[in-house]
Amino acid sequence: MIWADTIKWCGDYAKLIDQRKLPHEEVYIDVRTAEDMYEAIKNMAIRGAPAIGVAAGYGIALAALNSKHKKSLKKKMDLIESARPTAHNLFYAVKRMRKLLKCEKVDASVFVEEALKIHEEDKRLTELLGENGSKLIKDNSLYMTICNAGALATGGIGTALAVFYKAKEEGKEISVFVPETRPILQGARLTTWELKKNGIKSILIVDSAVSHILKTENINGIFTGADRIARNGDTANKIGTYSLSLSAKENGVPFYVVAPSTTFDLALKDGKDIPIEERAKEEVTEFMGLPMAPMNIDVKNPAFDVTPHKLISGIVTEKGILYPPFEEKMSVIQC
Amino acid sequence: MIWADTIKWCGDYAKLIDQRKLPHEEVYIDVRTAEDMYEAIKNMAIRGAPAIGVAAGYGIALAALNSKHKKSLKKKMDLIESARPTAHNLFYAVKRMRKLLKCEKVDASVFVEEALKIHEEDKRLTELLGENGSKLIKDNSLYMTICNAGALATGGIGTALAVFYKAKEEGKEISVFVPETRPILQGARLTTWELKKNGIKSILIVDSAVSHILKTENINGIFTGADRIARNGDTANKIGTYSLSLSAKENGVPFYVVAPSTTFDLALKDGKDIPIEERAKEEVTEFMGLPMAPMNIDVKNPAFDVTPHKLISGIVTEKGILYPPFEEKMSVIQC
Repeated sequence: MIWADTIKWCGDYAKLIDQRKLPHEEVYIDVRTAEDMYEAIKNMAIRGAPAIGVAAGYGIALAALNSKHKKSLKKKMDLIESARPTAHNLFYAVKRMRKLLKCEKVDASVFVEEALKIHEEDKRLTELLGENGSKLIKDNSLYMTICNAGALATGGIGTALAVFYKAKEEGKEISVFVPETRPILQGARLTTWELKKNGIKSILIVDSAVSHILKTENINGIFTGADRIARNGDTANKIGTYSLSLSAKENGVPFYVVAPSTTFDLALKDGKDIPIEERAKEEVTEFMGLPMAPMNIDVKNPAFDVTPHKLISGIVTEKGILYPPFEEKMSVIQC
Repeated sequence: MIWADTIKWCGDYAKLIDQRKLPHEEVYIDVRTAEDMYEAIKNMAIRGAPAIGVAAGYGIALAALNSKHKKSLKKKMDLIESARPTAHNLFYAVKRMRKLLKCEKVDASVFVEEALKIHEEDKRLTELLGENGSKLIKDNSLYMTICNAGALATGGIGTALAVFYKAKEEGKEISVFVPETRPILQGARLTTWELKKNGIKSILIVDSAVSHILKTENINGIFTGADRIARNGDTANKIGTYSLSLSAKENGVPFYVVAPSTTFDLALKDGKDIPIEERAKEEVTEFMGLPMAPMNIDVKNPAFDVTPHKLISGIVTEKGILYPPFEEKMSVIQC
């Protein structure tokens, strides 16, 4: 029913929509090697924590198809794992694929099957996220999200946006405020495009307008995705999520994180130790080759931030909605 | 010593640097009619509350040079006054010029003199703002600002940036984090350019990174300009200032507003009644003609927000630094 065609397996290669070109061009790329999948993840042709996990699985399946021995396959697994540092789903997927490294000889079909299974599971998880989260959605109401936590960010129908899609299926009418999400503009380019394809009205704003909108409009709730969730509920997500959660608290708007268990990193006590990716300065200083700032200036371009658990009203998972204190409820994630 | 050449009077016309073209081109425009000054203010060739006030004075001086009778001059005053709704300095300047409307015949020289006086006063005010604010600056430390509250935003050396310039004159070494300030990018285009011209290091960030930076870097204080300050200290300033002040509070970073008395609107009890300008959606959806989002989507583009007085550590004025509770201290502004 809704658009969800972010990545697929085509027998001996993977096909993915190039998210750098959206919304102006809908171009698909054929990815035939682990090295190309590494580049696709690193350069954000595909992005979003769950989608990165799925892509990593396929990347390793491609490596298996092209590797005779465990040693070379292991090297390519290391490469895939190094593509980006923050999203936990990447490490989750690589860890699962590593478990298949039992014999000296590589049976590629086993790796392909596991990658397909990771994808299938992710699809199912996003359906459950949507179903669980939609209980929080009221008819005829306004919501806000950040970045893109939709079909484009997963192997299924999304995390935060899955909540809106399921609510719409249930007949609820909603509109969604979408911060543009600089520097990559996942909000302006991807979320508005995806919501429109799925019949949901979006209202685009600049990132710095979130507090003003939360104060002056009647927003019923905020739903965001996550890149990594620590044991106490501290959540790494797209840069700006922390600001958004502060404004939500100040203005009494509920703030929900929506994420499958594959995003939880229960080995981490809290958010302090989540590695925050620092990306190229050109992402900030240029737009499609045009300069947005003087040449040769210093830039800091952190791609994520950590929202403290105390600012999160609830975490929607495939196993239900967790409410604070989160740490006590985390055992459910491991079951 | 420092660069401050935003607008000047050239006998019978005004010259201003076209801020839409900075930092890539340093182009000056000759403005010869009130209508052209109205356009220059409206289209943000010149912007920043004190600079708008100075430009309005010159716009009315131009109107006086071109009007024989009070009636036509009054009409042009109304036009200038309607250019933008939020910055109080515009209304302050127009009000001063209106006071000269005593006789039926227009003596243009009186209006030109008054416009020059407004400019001269603004210059002096910015010097005092810098001197008063620089007492708050420590040597070898990091600061943050937002938008451009520099020479480009005033008839002198700036408001918030004047504080940094004076501190530098006193030999203090500082670096300044600069949020890019979407959608017009006054931070990325103007503040980095102006700080560089004046020998101060800037570090550019996206707007949504402010909370992460305030949490992870050792920022000593935030200094912003203002567009309008109500009697209780509520302050309208560039969209994003409210978010920034919330993050400052959460992370224990002092948050200072720097503004001359011409920005205070003591007729307003609080910030609720400050009109917030809503600007064209294309500012958000396009960059230099290139689309940043799908066509035909809904956009909300408020140019300002209101920072509640409770989030402001102090207001630096030409008469000294006001500390909370602000309302009790406001009488000093009227003297």
